[in-house]
Amino acid sequence: MTSVCLARYGITSVLTVDEKTAQIHAGQADGIQPRTLEVLQSLDLAHEVLTQGCQMHEVGFWNPTEDGAGIVRTAFVPDVAVPARYPHEVTIHQGRIERIFNEDLEKNGNKVQRGWKVSGWEFDYEDEEFPVVVKMSGQDMERVVRAKYLVGADGAHSTVRDGMGLKLVGDHTDHVWGVMDAVVKTDFPDIRKRCAIHSSTGSIMIIPRERISGNKVLTRIYCQMEDEVERDPTIAAPSTADPTAAKQQAKKRREKVTLERIISQSQKVLAPYTISFADIDWWAAYQIGQRATTKFSTADKNGVLRVHIAGDACHTHSPKAGQGMNVSMMDGFNLSWKLAHVLNGLSPAGADLIATYEHERLDIARQLIAFDTEFSSMFSGKIGAETGLTHEKFVKVFSTGSGFTSGCGIQYREGLLVAKQETTPSGAPESGLLIPGRRLMNVRTKRFADANPRDIHDDMPTSGRYRIVAALPTAFRTDPAAFQKVLEGLVETLPGRFPEGVVESVVVFPGERGSLEWTDFPACVRERSEWLVLGDHYGMVYKTWGVEESAGGVAVVRPDGYVGLVASALDAAVAEVGTYLEGVLRTV
Amino acid sequence: MTSVCLARYGITSVLTVDEKTAQIHAGQADGIQPRTLEVLQSLDLAHEVLTQGCQMHEVGFWNPTEDGAGIVRTAFVPDVAVPARYPHEVTIHQGRIERIFNEDLEKNGNKVQRGWKVSGWEFDYEDEEFPVVVKMSGQDMERVVRAKYLVGADGAHSTVRDGMGLKLVGDHTDHVWGVMDAVVKTDFPDIRKRCAIHSSTGSIMIIPRERISGNKVLTRIYCQMEDEVERDPTIAAPSTADPTAAKQQAKKRREKVTLERIISQSQKVLAPYTISFADIDWWAAYQIGQRATTKFSTADKNGVLRVHIAGDACHTHSPKAGQGMNVSMMDGFNLSWKLAHVLNGLSPAGADLIATYEHERLDIARQLIAFDTEFSSMFSGKIGAETGLTHEKFVKVFSTGSGFTSGCGIQYREGLLVAKQETTPSGAPESGLLIPGRRLMNVRTKRFADANPRDIHDDMPTSGRYRIVAALPTAFRTDPAAFQKVLEGLVETLPGRFPEGVVESVVVFPGERGSLEWTDFPACVRERSEWLVLGDHYGMVYKTWGVEESAGGVAVVRPDGYVGLVASALDAAVAEVGTYLEGVLRTV
Repeated sequence: MTSVCLARYGITSVLTVDEKTAQIHAGQADGIQPRTLEVLQSLDLAHEVLTQGCQMHEVGFWNPTEDGAGIVRTAFVPDVAVPARYPHEVTIHQGRIERIFNEDLEKNGNKVQRGWKVSGWEFDYEDEEFPVVVKMSGQDMERVVRAKYLVGADGAHSTVRDGMGLKLVGDHTDHVWGVMDAVVKTDFPDIRKRCAIHSSTGSIMIIPRERISGNKVLTRIYCQMEDEVERDPTIAAPSTADPTAAKQQAKKRREKVTLERIISQSQKVLAPYTISFADIDWWAAYQIGQRATTKFSTADKNGVLRVHIAGDACHTHSPKAGQGMNVSMMDGFNLSWKLAHVLNGLSPAGADLIATYEHERLDIARQLIAFDTEFSSMFSGKIGAETGLTHEKFVKVFSTGSGFTSGCGIQYREGLLVAKQETTPSGAPESGLLIPGRRLMNVRTKRFADANPRDIHDDMPTSGRYRIVAALPTAFRTDPAAFQKVLEGLVETLPGRFPEGVVESVVVFPGERGSLEWTDFPACVRERSEWLVLGDHYGMVYKTWGVEESAGGVAVVRPDGYVGLVASALDAAVAEVGTYLEGVLRTV
Repeated sequence: MTSVCLARYGITSVLTVDEKTAQIHAGQADGIQPRTLEVLQSLDLAHEVLTQGCQMHEVGFWNPTEDGAGIVRTAFVPDVAVPARYPHEVTIHQGRIERIFNEDLEKNGNKVQRGWKVSGWEFDYEDEEFPVVVKMSGQDMERVVRAKYLVGADGAHSTVRDGMGLKLVGDHTDHVWGVMDAVVKTDFPDIRKRCAIHSSTGSIMIIPRERISGNKVLTRIYCQMEDEVERDPTIAAPSTADPTAAKQQAKKRREKVTLERIISQSQKVLAPYTISFADIDWWAAYQIGQRATTKFSTADKNGVLRVHIAGDACHTHSPKAGQGMNVSMMDGFNLSWKLAHVLNGLSPAGADLIATYEHERLDIARQLIAFDTEFSSMFSGKIGAETGLTHEKFVKVFSTGSGFTSGCGIQYREGLLVAKQETTPSGAPESGLLIPGRRLMNVRTKRFADANPRDIHDDMPTSGRYRIVAALPTAFRTDPAAFQKVLEGLVETLPGRFPEGVVESVVVFPGERGSLEWTDFPACVRERSEWLVLGDHYGMVYKTWGVEESAGGVAVVRPDGYVGLVASALDAAVAEVGTYLEGVLRTV
């Protein structure tokens, strides 16, 4: 994701290496969350994922029957409980995501060099502009590369992280999981839906997946085999003090997970429904603890943040909430535009844009660990009076967690890129309100120039630009001239103060076109924002964003689609937007 | 299109040659109609067209001001007046369509061989299985190819057509048109919409087009310069009797169309608005008469229809209604699956599937010529009391013609593939009613198995299959067992009588899922049509198709998405569908 975005932003001198010699062919991550879909769409990379993947719209919750002898569906719940452009997850093989990314990368002049293993890195100031020296080996060669920046998206055993002197810290009690992708034959009626199944004999999770060929459809089954892989009391409990014992313990527990056990546990939990397995595509024993690093970035001697980690190198957790691939890609998505702005000389002296990567994403990693800890212990627990875990409680955690798990409810912390908002609009923040730190919620509009129905996200693709979004008040309809000055400020003067093309302005007006004519918009709007004058034809924009039609409002949207600033009022907007943008962009 | 489809259907021994040595780079056709978009979508080739092309949703009609000194907008009218999955046209450069087709062709094992000019063909029965001998030259070589079939999509001057002894017949009064693609600068407010502009000095048509780079957007302008290119009285009127004089006349008139004249006419018609032209991408003088051949296919001595023509080889007309590329592609779409069925041995002895190509498409060509004659004379005419042409009349022809021009309202003639319907459902046929010969109208459903909202077109992609569509009556909800027999007939017995995979069954039920369970559907439905059990969750299906929920209904949809048969009643359906399918498919 980092390389894909850097290539899009025109950064061509990027070396992308992968230790693996080939794309993965089976198993691994498979879930794409709604916010990730929005981001892929903003890169025009969502089409295949949306059409060829398996969309999960509903989750079936199954619980023990009263007599404990079987299972019964308690409820269907929407898979995603918060508003989103794509209100569902998609499962698709990780190798396909890799392929889509590789194709895009090659289209934009980069390419993954495979079979290179990074063995270490160090700062070397002989060349102060390129102080990061990275060593790698592959194809029977050693290779030393000098770089300005290094991003380690090299997994839970990250060499880049080790070089930073960082460790994954947190829960030392690894959970052991079995996971399997197979073509199944079953009379379980909800096999094509995501299901969380608690039976009196244990729990499994069903994740429907894409068709692989003809009528062959994959199903993923996760099962946690607590009773089977209890810690062996003859081995010391794992601790950082005794890493050998910990490893021994871990290995011993992991080895208890076999394909046969996954199959038999699935059959026991699903009884009296029957299930058999054909075409087993992949299976694995997962062993994972909820852990994260305390930092994501390391500075050189001059204080420049040169070395970064992303993805599993920063956080590991259970696969139960389908977060792995998503939070990791979003790390890269957050980091890449900041690197590009700095490398392209768009960032003002004195503003440490890159520091906001750790500031924002470390916070998300912490939330991830906290959520996953709660969710996975609930999932593993038995439902019933003895445990105090009820179906209602489980569904509540699932649904309230949806803001986080979907990626649509996350909110970046206040900082250089996220201004403080004086008056928070009333309503649920997840519902799409304009709040700094949250992603701009997609709304459907009708473009003035060509009467095209538009998703606003499609008019704000990922291109490295900031957008000033001006939502005009109702009064514009009757007295457009009164808004000429503020529009000139937002659409012409402000963008003109920064390098060309880096700031563009979107103008939204309330209601349908009605009697409005093109000439009602100032010349600067017609010339500079011809494709970005959007009418709230469907009555969604002001309502979703929580903007009063009588007052209007102005926001700045960052290059990654997150709201950076919401101006306090229309007449104060030009000054406030100016101050915000001067903090993050070089003026001309 | 023919080659693309044949490759999709697994016909690998296809030689595709094009006289042109390269993809076209500018100009030519640019309009894609709604039905063509549906077809492209059914081939998963619509994404780029929809996202990168220019969508035309509204048409502006401009007429002379009362004093005749300028122009005024009389109305905006929807670009497409009939229900369609994509209720708009798209303009995109013909070269891009070629590229999309070429890529798909290569993905499926074929490739256009460029620079080969077909010089003629003849029947030669030395090899009776491959009796068509085609001569072509290119790369300083002569090449002779033996084929089972020959499809000439070789344009208005078709060599294949000449070899069939056919001519384009019809109107001999060619209209002369100027057309230009340019980046324009104008204060005309509707420049990003399709506009039909009648002024007191003449007419032009504006066709907005795609962005070519950054903020550069193409606009196409058509103008007919009647007064400028009047027939020269010193030259004899063209007639078939004197082809030399006709050619001389045509050339002389065409030469009067220059870039300067197109520019000045555009400026005159648009006054008092101003327009100037930069980046002129392409311009041309069109000279075209409304003509068609009387046949599309030629048989060998055994009566086997071996040689066919498609596209401009069969019909030429004005560019005003944006039909060219569309009707032509639909010719190939109609022909290709029939060829594939015959070549793959799916067609029963004695049924001449291929004869339905001419039967169906010749009829469409005739309608095309009739519509275009009416529409273009109206477009060229001046609006006003003297001529009797009113704005209302023009808009009426435009809107009622939309069924035809959009491609969504066409209805193939009764014949082998289109059964007679005893009781026509009441309502406007264009609105999506189930009528043999019309395309199955897309409806939004929710799939039972995975609760996915689905466009039914996406569940019936172009794959060479017939589909039996069974819309169950309301009674199914309360007494599913009562429908076991008819469902077994439609979903299991009938498809089982034909080669495997060539017939599949779609089951629709009224209303939302409610208390329906997967086990309410017979085992054969669950096994054979797991992905094709669709609920009328959004209340669109029965209403759009004109099926009574109390009675239900059954239809057969042909491989090209057109309805072949509507059964008279649910209990008669198995027999009626069986008879229809036996007429067109070999039994096993």
